[in-house]
Amino acid sequence: MTGRRSTSAVSARDVKREDEQVTFKVSRTLGFGHCDPAGIAYFPSYFDIMVEVMEEIFAALGSPWPTMMGERRIGVPTVKLDVDFTAPSRHGDRLDFAVRVARLGRSSLELHYRVTTRGRPVWTARQVIVAISLDTQRAVPWPDDLRAALAAHLETADAHDLAP
Amino acid sequence: MTGRRSTSAVSARDVKREDEQVTFKVSRTLGFGHCDPAGIAYFPSYFDIMVEVMEEIFAALGSPWPTMMGERRIGVPTVKLDVDFTAPSRHGDRLDFAVRVARLGRSSLELHYRVTTRGRPVWTARQVIVAISLDTQRAVPWPDDLRAALAAHLETADAHDLAP
Amino acid sequence: MTGRRSTSAVSARDVKREDEQVTFKVSRTLGFGHCDPAGIAYFPSYFDIMVEVMEEIFAALGSPWPTMMGERRIGVPTVKLDVDFTAPSRHGDRLDFAVRVARLGRSSLELHYRVTTRGRPVWTARQVIVAISLDTQRAVPWPDDLRAALAAHLETADAHDLAP
Amino acid sequence: MTGRRSTSAVSARDVKREDEQVTFKVSRTLGFGHCDPAGIAYFPSYFDIMVEVMEEIFAALGSPWPTMMGERRIGVPTVKLDVDFTAPSRHGDRLDFAVRVARLGRSSLELHYRVTTRGRPVWTARQVIVAISLDTQRAVPWPDDLRAALAAHLETADAHDLAP
Repeated sequence: MTGRRSTSAVSARDVKREDEQVTFKVSRTLGFGHCDPAGIAYFPSYFDIMVEVMEEIFAALGSPWPTMMGERRIGVPTVKLDVDFTAPSRHGDRLDFAVRVARLGRSSLELHYRVTTRGRPVWTARQVIVAISLDTQRAVPWPDDLRAALAAHLETADAHDLAP
Repeated sequence: MTGRRSTSAVSARDVKREDEQVTFKVSRTLGFGHCDPAGIAYFPSYFDIMVEVMEEIFAALGSPWPTMMGERRIGVPTVKLDVDFTAPSRHGDRLDFAVRVARLGRSSLELHYRVTTRGRPVWTARQVIVAISLDTQRAVPWPDDLRAALAAHLETADAHDLAP
Repeated sequence: MTGRRSTSAVSARDVKREDEQVTFKVSRTLGFGHCDPAGIAYFPSYFDIMVEVMEEIFAALGSPWPTMMGERRIGVPTVKLDVDFTAPSRHGDRLDFAVRVARLGRSSLELHYRVTTRGRPVWTARQVIVAISLDTQRAVPWPDDLRAALAAHLETADAHDLAP
Repeated sequence: MTGRRSTSAVSARDVKREDEQVTFKVSRTLGFGHCDPAGIAYFPSYFDIMVEVMEEIFAALGSPWPTMMGERRIGVPTVKLDVDFTAPSRHGDRLDFAVRVARLGRSSLELHYRVTTRGRPVWTARQVIVAISLDTQRAVPWPDDLRAALAAHLETADAHDLAP
C-alpha cells in the first residue's frame, strides 16, 4: 500500500526522480469504439488499451508475446489491479502512458501506470502480473533473459525481488 | 482500506452476516468471446460483464440506465476500482456475482463484488462510482428515490456515510 | 447469391412458411457497453452478441462449445458474413433474434439471422461457418450427432445440400 | 454484386490498376486481446479494427471524427457489410489494410477492404456507410469539403455519384 501513498503525496523531488525512471512511454488515441453513450471513455476499454501497452512493453524488452506464449508457453495473467480514475477522457484524446517497473519478484511483476492527456491526469493503476506456464497453469520463475531485461528497468536496486 | 482487510480476514460470524446481506446475485456464463488464446477469461472482459451486472442492479433498484441516463441525464462513472484475481475462469464457467452496497455517500457509492464459479473464488472487487450530471459532467446528489433504494441495501446503518 | 434474393423478395406465403420454420429465437438487451457516442449500437458489438447467440444455438443442439472445442477439438470459424443494417437500435432495446438453418453442407452451415426490436427490423445477416479441426485447422465433416441435430432444423429437404 | 465478381476475377491488368488506385493503406498488428481460445482472430475484433481504420481514413481526408461528430454533428453508420474470410490470422500477425473508395453517393459511400498478412489474403469486405445528422438521425448530403476529398479517391470518374 505504500506505493499508492507515495503516488498521491510525492514531493517535487520525487516527481522528478520518478520521471527520470519512467522507462516506458506509449501513446494511444482514444477511438470512437472506446467511447460510451456519454461520449467519454467506456472504462473497460481502458483495459483493452492497457493490454496493448503491456504487449508493446514486452516486445520492447525482447519478449514479444506471440513467441513468449506460443513457443516458450509463458503467460502473464493479472492477479491484482488497483485503478484510480481521475478525470474522464474523450473521443480523440491522446492518452500518454508512462509505465514503471515497480517491483520484480521471482515470478511476479508490479507495474505502475500513469495515464495523462495533454499533461492532465486521467488514471493511474498498479498492476501485479505473474509468470505462469501455459501448460501447467502454475507460476514459474521469469526466464533469465526476461528477468534481466525487467531488472534493468527497476526503479531502485532494493525494490528488486522482495516478493513473492 | 479497512474494507479490503475485512474481506481477507473475515471471521465465520462475519461471513454469515455478509451472506445475509448480499443483496444482489447475478450469474453470467463465460462465453467464447470473453476468452483469450490461453483459453481463460481475458481480464478486460470481466469489466464488460461487470458493467452488465451494474446495469442489472440499477434496473432492479427501479432506475434502469436508459431512463436514468437518457431522461434524468445522470451518469455513474467509476472513479476507483480495486480487483484481486484469485483464480482463472474458463470458457463455459458460470460466474456467480454477489454484490453488496458497502457505502453510500451524497453522490458516491461503493460496491463490493465477489465472483465465484462452482463455489470457488474467481475475483473480488471494490468499486466506487459517482453520480454525475451528463450535462455538466459534475457530481450531483443521488436522486431521492435512487438514494432510498440504495440505502435499503446498505450493509449496516453505520456504513451509511455522507462523504464524499 | 439466390439466398439474398429470396430474402428480399419473399412472398406472403414464404414469410409465413419462414416464420413456422424459424427454429431458434433468442433475445438480448442492448446494454450500455454495446452503444457508441451516438447513443446507438456500435456495430461491432452486434457481432459479439451474434457469437453469444451462436453459442446458445449450439448448446441447444446438444453441442455446447466448451465441450465441442475443448474435447472434440472442433471449431466453427465464420467464412462469410453479409449483413444489412436496416435501422439503428438503442441502449435498452430488446433485440429479438430469429435464426434459421438455411443450408447444411458436409462441413459448412449457413445461418440466416433476422433481428428485430419491438417487431421492427434492425438487421439481417447471412453467415456461413465451417467445421474445422482445431488441431489441423482443416475442414472436417460435421460429427454425426451434430449433423443430425442441424438437419432437423433445415428449412426444406432440398435445402440440404452436400456442398462444399 | 458486380463489385464482388470483379474482386474475385480480376485480370492481371485490373490488379495493377487497382493497386495504383488503392488510396488508403493502414497496418495493424493483431494483438492478444483480438484472439480467441483457438489462438486466431476472434472475428468481431476485425470490426473493432475496421472502425479504427475508418477513423484513420477520415482523419487523412481532413475530417477527423471527433470534430465531424462532435461539432458538425455528422455520423457515418454502416448500412451494409459483406465480408469474406479467406484465411485465419494469428496473434502477432501484421494486418495490412488496403481500402478503396468504390462508390460515392449523395450521402452514401462504399468502401472495399482487402486485408492481407505477409501478402496472403485474410479477408475482404464491402461496406456501405451513410452520412447522417446526429441530431435528426436522417441521411444528409456529404459536406462539400468531405465530398471533394472522397471524390478525389474514387476509382473511376463514372463510379461517382450513381447512388443512392
